Amino acid sequence: MIATGLLLPGSHRAAALTDDRAVARAALRVEAAWVAAQSRAGLAPDGAAAAAHAAVDRVPLDDAALTELAVASEGGGNLVIPLLAAYRRAVTREYGQPLGAVHASLTSQDVMDTALALVLRDVRAAVLDGLGRTGDALARLVSQHRATVMVGRTLTQHALPTSFGLKAASWLAGVDDAADDVAARAVLPVSFGGAAGTLAATVARCTRPGDSEREALARVDELLGHWAEELGLDLPDGVWHTNRVPVLRVVGSLGETAAALARMANDVLTMSRPEVGELREPAAEGRGVSSAMPQKQNPVLSVLLKRTGLAAPGLTAQVLAGAAAADDERPDGGWHAEWPPLRELAVLAAAASSHAAELAAGLTVREDRMARNLADAGTGVMAERLTAQLAPVLAHGEGPGAKEAVQEAVRAAPQDPDAVARALAARVEAAGPEALPRGVDPADVAGWIRSLLDPRGYLGAAPHLCDRAAARHEERKRS
Amino acid sequence: MIATGLLLPGSHRAAALTDDRAVARAALRVEAAWVAAQSRAGLAPDGAAAAAHAAVDRVPLDDAALTELAVASEGGGNLVIPLLAAYRRAVTREYGQPLGAVHASLTSQDVMDTALALVLRDVRAAVLDGLGRTGDALARLVSQHRATVMVGRTLTQHALPTSFGLKAASWLAGVDDAADDVAARAVLPVSFGGAAGTLAATVARCTRPGDSEREALARVDELLGHWAEELGLDLPDGVWHTNRVPVLRVVGSLGETAAALARMANDVLTMSRPEVGELREPAAEGRGVSSAMPQKQNPVLSVLLKRTGLAAPGLTAQVLAGAAAADDERPDGGWHAEWPPLRELAVLAAAASSHAAELAAGLTVREDRMARNLADAGTGVMAERLTAQLAPVLAHGEGPGAKEAVQEAVRAAPQDPDAVARALAARVEAAGPEALPRGVDPADVAGWIRSLLDPRGYLGAAPHLCDRAAARHEERKRS
Amino acid sequence: MIATGLLLPGSHRAAALTDDRAVARAALRVEAAWVAAQSRAGLAPDGAAAAAHAAVDRVPLDDAALTELAVASEGGGNLVIPLLAAYRRAVTREYGQPLGAVHASLTSQDVMDTALALVLRDVRAAVLDGLGRTGDALARLVSQHRATVMVGRTLTQHALPTSFGLKAASWLAGVDDAADDVAARAVLPVSFGGAAGTLAATVARCTRPGDSEREALARVDELLGHWAEELGLDLPDGVWHTNRVPVLRVVGSLGETAAALARMANDVLTMSRPEVGELREPAAEGRGVSSAMPQKQNPVLSVLLKRTGLAAPGLTAQVLAGAAAADDERPDGGWHAEWPPLRELAVLAAAASSHAAELAAGLTVREDRMARNLADAGTGVMAERLTAQLAPVLAHGEGPGAKEAVQEAVRAAPQDPDAVARALAARVEAAGPEALPRGVDPADVAGWIRSLLDPRGYLGAAPHLCDRAAARHEERKRS
Amino acid sequence: MIATGLLLPGSHRAAALTDDRAVARAALRVEAAWVAAQSRAGLAPDGAAAAAHAAVDRVPLDDAALTELAVASEGGGNLVIPLLAAYRRAVTREYGQPLGAVHASLTSQDVMDTALALVLRDVRAAVLDGLGRTGDALARLVSQHRATVMVGRTLTQHALPTSFGLKAASWLAGVDDAADDVAARAVLPVSFGGAAGTLAATVARCTRPGDSEREALARVDELLGHWAEELGLDLPDGVWHTNRVPVLRVVGSLGETAAALARMANDVLTMSRPEVGELREPAAEGRGVSSAMPQKQNPVLSVLLKRTGLAAPGLTAQVLAGAAAADDERPDGGWHAEWPPLRELAVLAAAASSHAAELAAGLTVREDRMARNLADAGTGVMAERLTAQLAPVLAHGEGPGAKEAVQEAVRAAPQDPDAVARALAARVEAAGPEALPRGVDPADVAGWIRSLLDPRGYLGAAPHLCDRAAARHEERKRS
Repeated sequence: MIATGLLLPGSHRAAALTDDRAVARAALRVEAAWVAAQSRAGLAPDGAAAAAHAAVDRVPLDDAALTELAVASEGGGNLVIPLLAAYRRAVTREYGQPLGAVHASLTSQDVMDTALALVLRDVRAAVLDGLGRTGDALARLVSQHRATVMVGRTLTQHALPTSFGLKAASWLAGVDDAADDVAARAVLPVSFGGAAGTLAATVARCTRPGDSEREALARVDELLGHWAEELGLDLPDGVWHTNRVPVLRVVGSLGETAAALARMANDVLTMSRPEVGELREPAAEGRGVSSAMPQKQNPVLSVLLKRTGLAAPGLTAQVLAGAAAADDERPDGGWHAEWPPLRELAVLAAAASSHAAELAAGLTVREDRMARNLADAGTGVMAERLTAQLAPVLAHGEGPGAKEAVQEAVRAAPQDPDAVARALAARVEAAGPEALPRGVDPADVAGWIRSLLDPRGYLGAAPHLCDRAAARHEERKRS
Repeated sequence: MIATGLLLPGSHRAAALTDDRAVARAALRVEAAWVAAQSRAGLAPDGAAAAAHAAVDRVPLDDAALTELAVASEGGGNLVIPLLAAYRRAVTREYGQPLGAVHASLTSQDVMDTALALVLRDVRAAVLDGLGRTGDALARLVSQHRATVMVGRTLTQHALPTSFGLKAASWLAGVDDAADDVAARAVLPVSFGGAAGTLAATVARCTRPGDSEREALARVDELLGHWAEELGLDLPDGVWHTNRVPVLRVVGSLGETAAALARMANDVLTMSRPEVGELREPAAEGRGVSSAMPQKQNPVLSVLLKRTGLAAPGLTAQVLAGAAAADDERPDGGWHAEWPPLRELAVLAAAASSHAAELAAGLTVREDRMARNLADAGTGVMAERLTAQLAPVLAHGEGPGAKEAVQEAVRAAPQDPDAVARALAARVEAAGPEALPRGVDPADVAGWIRSLLDPRGYLGAAPHLCDRAAARHEERKRS
Repeated sequence: MIATGLLLPGSHRAAALTDDRAVARAALRVEAAWVAAQSRAGLAPDGAAAAAHAAVDRVPLDDAALTELAVASEGGGNLVIPLLAAYRRAVTREYGQPLGAVHASLTSQDVMDTALALVLRDVRAAVLDGLGRTGDALARLVSQHRATVMVGRTLTQHALPTSFGLKAASWLAGVDDAADDVAARAVLPVSFGGAAGTLAATVARCTRPGDSEREALARVDELLGHWAEELGLDLPDGVWHTNRVPVLRVVGSLGETAAALARMANDVLTMSRPEVGELREPAAEGRGVSSAMPQKQNPVLSVLLKRTGLAAPGLTAQVLAGAAAADDERPDGGWHAEWPPLRELAVLAAAASSHAAELAAGLTVREDRMARNLADAGTGVMAERLTAQLAPVLAHGEGPGAKEAVQEAVRAAPQDPDAVARALAARVEAAGPEALPRGVDPADVAGWIRSLLDPRGYLGAAPHLCDRAAARHEERKRS
Repeated sequence: MIATGLLLPGSHRAAALTDDRAVARAALRVEAAWVAAQSRAGLAPDGAAAAAHAAVDRVPLDDAALTELAVASEGGGNLVIPLLAAYRRAVTREYGQPLGAVHASLTSQDVMDTALALVLRDVRAAVLDGLGRTGDALARLVSQHRATVMVGRTLTQHALPTSFGLKAASWLAGVDDAADDVAARAVLPVSFGGAAGTLAATVARCTRPGDSEREALARVDELLGHWAEELGLDLPDGVWHTNRVPVLRVVGSLGETAAALARMANDVLTMSRPEVGELREPAAEGRGVSSAMPQKQNPVLSVLLKRTGLAAPGLTAQVLAGAAAADDERPDGGWHAEWPPLRELAVLAAAASSHAAELAAGLTVREDRMARNLADAGTGVMAERLTAQLAPVLAHGEGPGAKEAVQEAVRAAPQDPDAVARALAARVEAAGPEALPRGVDPADVAGWIRSLLDPRGYLGAAPHLCDRAAARHEERKRS
């Protein structure tokens, strides 16, 4: 069959949760739990549950068997029919005779959707684990670098001073937002409707002679409750064979995960460019090697995360297209279109959260380069502050306003704060001492202006925002 | 400029909420509220707020002015700079002199993101109104047709009997699920970060001589609180210039809306095909007319809804691609890529919910055609029931099992329930009367089997599921 | 690893061409051909080519080995480094010592892109084979049914008579258009640039003492020519490490294939609905079976084709996103994002063309149902013709014009052509005999109008367009 | 209506070609040409053509009229019906009485598709103009900088020396490839099928008494030929109402354009980061200004191009989704879904090619920064060359091989070529003079190695590839 392992580097981190074997095994567990639920409800004989559970491990799922299953899946358009045939054989062997309760009243979609619910439960746990570790590592960076100055960049250009902690806090906010949604929304309930979504066969089987409709339906609810309990899944509000909003919620949260991690990677890629040099990915044996250039260390984790961010939009679109194409009581292609992109998003999100955790935990932060780049950014990044501070002062004089004066000074000495201070001091002094803010020594106007040019004094709320983001993360963990 | 009105029929239903004028006006209101908030915080003089508010209506936003703004937007890459220039002029006229508080400490993205938050607030209300009316109309159909039999179709083929109410209940579930998410998630908070996300200029302005850092930050929070209150928007946890999960939540809920409505439309399109004839779209003056064929009545509302379902995946992908490309302290293209698809999704969702409300409220349900199609579907759709009922009976005889017997009978007389009943009665009688279920008259086995062939007796939980969906909808409305 | 076989039913038809084993093997063949090319150019010793070729089969590519390779691919972000290590070991065993020519001057991307070129060559052949067989079968249907009347449907509603042959001709046009593009554009050349796209190492190796630059470059060209010849691939105009238009051309042609086949499937799905009943998919052992309902025959081939049509847009978007994100001399994620969707599109296109060929060749056309549905469509579908024919006649009278008269008659007797003929004849006769077209017998106006109501006489150019489409297909095959 | 001007900065460059007015006007021209063609074929009276042409300018298309049209378009699902009503009124005024030839035998889709063909003709010309100017400017850069050394970067890290000309040549290749496809494929023919694609009404109108079928069809072909000639469009092979491959070809070429230009922008964005500083966007009045920071110069053209690259995948997906959803004789939503993304892609491609031309023509290339960055990249970027050159020499000694020796030397002195030369010279000398290549002075081994460390000597085929790309561009222009 087609394995996307080689073309999706890093996917091995999630493969065991999501590969064909995992899906087939989940489908078998769904069938076994159904027999067990029927046993509990008195609809299957003693010993049925045990045989059904035991049979799960007896269905061959080696590579050859999976290939055969895949080939046979074409006939019915999904994997359930051939898998069920193999499962029936296994149950018959375990139980000594055919067991009518196997798959009784179920339809393929019930089994398939519920199997995907099981697969996604594991994926959700993996994604939350990865996001949690990523968040923990980022929270440490946030706290540690709450006041580590660096140059803030907007539309690629130097803007104002900021702190590296604040950048990490912004990454962290994305990670925590995505984790909130994965926790709340990457969850599918059991799927149950029978052949046309009416539960007709189940109602018939649950109806005992003399039952009122209400009594029969209560038995149906009890049976489904057993099943959901066996599987550890929730019961839905209704039949979701063609209402695919539940699937869209899963996909939405996985897409958010991809986006939140990709944009962290975008920053790491930029900041680990040699010319910037502010960050370095963690080294690891065999990581980032080049086949041709021994001196190179490629930021492979970030490359894989960026790759994930590029893949997620199209994958999301596929699932949404499938959902929007649903029709009739069970769809004629829309449903089938959901599976591969849903799985690939799951794989990418799980792998990416693991990559991100490793990246965040091992990131080398080079404060010296941050400081140097900020220094190289020059006096221009302090223009906003100078203008604001000098505006009331220079408004009183007859010369140019603060904005013009600052621009002129900054352009004349982009790399020389002392010269800027001197030039502006001359302007300020010409405006007269009465215009000076309280506390400024008229004898040292240049010193005052020079102090305004210190980027460490213009971090705004950055350290405070860092503390808030870290606190939010702590609170999330506790709740 | 480019107007998508002519190429997006139905979009006029949401145009006034979302067009360039609405966006520009929202941006002006954001600027005005910022001045007002500063006034409340003592950072702007008396009269500033009044002038700022009055100036909103003084900025020309006629078509020519919008075109000019659009042309001028290229220079900075967004609409704020040219719009701000016009706004400053208007404020100066109102206030009598330039007002420094205008746009003080804001960056373009603060204004733009917050303006979109305002636009989306209106869009959210419109979508919820449309979905609410759609849901109400569907809930009526659900209750009315809880037991209106029709043939259930899976993968386009006849499967089992169902009720039209259950189909409508499935539509309703999608609509209510989408509405839940729109209500909870199609909401953006104010955006505030200043030039590089540090709030540096604002902190400086809020710092009074002698303030501790804590006091200054409290003033910042108070100022932002005023602003959010003026606008009726929420405050965010932090700066979201580059963390775009908030935007993805909006988009996700709009995409769910599109999918939920599109698949209702898919069903209406199929069921209003002349050969099926079970539903008919509401007629309206000029609706569904053909330029060439007077006798035709095209299901235009459903066509437009299906169109929306086809558009949503690609639009969602665009916004997600933009979000995943965010970088630095403000993005170099990722942010810009969000706007058009976000707006188009908003337009489509609002228009679609309005179309759907009209469709659901005026849908003609032709029970006669449903009954006829179910009759035409023949005895095959009762095979599941027959097999289940006869299995214990025929298991005792020596002939073929129930499955084979039923298949044979059904294939021999696909349209003749009496013949099927006779054929199976012969089989059952051969198995001996002791095998009959309690209560079946051995003298009228054919009558018993004939009664099993009545589809009205095999609706399963359909009416019950209808009641549950309608009740859930009622409960939503109350909460 | 993750195998998409089970979640992509039908993909086994293309698996052997595209799975991880095929990709890895293609990469090994690329490496071997490179050694062989160097031998021919005098840059590798005697015996090198033989050893290099022999080693291809010595690299273990069983499932366990592929899993190991996939895991190891994470380190460098692609499969080449670990695969190359295994290949070097195999070559050393074959050659008796390490062979420096292995991978000499190549970079990973050269190998990977060229390996995908090899894979796509096989995919292209498979797609063209499937499309060719589909086209042949459709051409037969076109000719056979050039005048088989059926009702034409627009926006789901009955419009005018058409012929089934014309519908098939429209399918055929899509198939032939797609095939033209697959033939011309689903082709990648060898990829060669070395570590940074300059061919520096190769130029150095090809430069002999005393060579002019021109002579050295001629040797480089000769070497690359040998390589391309060994692989049976074309030489490109330049280095395409970051210019991904060649990849977009491939993807575009595969997307067209998916769309052309999906829309054929859309029609088959509609026309094989029981209520329409005009077409039926070919039956096959195990095809279209339902796990719950023995009487059902699901149109599985069409379902899988529709599924493909829903998947293609998102997959195309992924590759395009990767291409648009290319940067530097080799991309940091954009390139990596291309692989999985490119392969999945290839698999889907190859499988779909095979499914379509089977579908087209075995399609049951039920002329009786077509005739019946057309009859049921009634007199309305002839209104256009009646209006046009009667317009000059009724323009002379004083009553309503032709359009109104026809509409009234048709609405009064939607199913009764004789009544329509009588009603309109009365109108025409009132206009006086002089208004009748030449050749119409004034004594049998109703007969004339009745003849206009025969849909077989109103097929327009349909049979002619069928002949043209079939002829075009024949011509394509000859060229 | 919704105007995307403000949210799509730069779109004014293509607005006049593509806005609602342009589309409506194109539709009117299509109708007028149809009357004119009928006149030429004798199917419309004298004076009809003149009136029909004159009426085009009489239909009000001011903003209010367009809004009204957009509102009215909902009824039929497209703009043709209300526009046609207005056009009929105008023709009647011009002609003095109603003219039956207006829209005779046409269906809405014929008019709409053909109108889009007209719009796209203008778009194609604009895109080709922009790409042509971009290519010309790039070709100049290629030639000028064929040997301007800079550091080549792969996966963001320094790799080998390259020339800026080669980078520009790679951009140029993408631009020329895209231009080839736009020229050949961004072309739609007239669309003609009548109400159900059979041309039935036209055949009837073209049939004169006594005509054979063949004669009648010849008249139809003649009429269509006249129409196509009036419009300056091609005739198609057949009816393409539901075969949308022609549309996909257009979209594919526009997507390639977006990708080719976006990745040029990606490079400019990186290279104009202050820390890299190798390129600078052309300045222009009001371009790249920041609302908050006077010193900033944002690379807005590249930002808009990157934005375009992020938008194109989702837009392409939308059109492809529409095409794959086509069904029946005219589609029930698939067709409608094509319009907005097709137009937006057209706008983006036309605007982007114009932006790119300006960018390429005015790009500042800072050779000094390229040189400095290359120097800063250090000795590591020469490791590949050193290893290759020293391999035969050091293979003879007993010490470590060339790869290890070079790595050790480079790591010890990453910024000091002299030290690397000395260290390696010691190794080489230890291997004995007989191992030296011919021509190397044994007395100055260090000098030889030092010369190998000159990046200018290791550009490989870069200048040659530049010449080839420039020549290809020249050749394209001539052909």
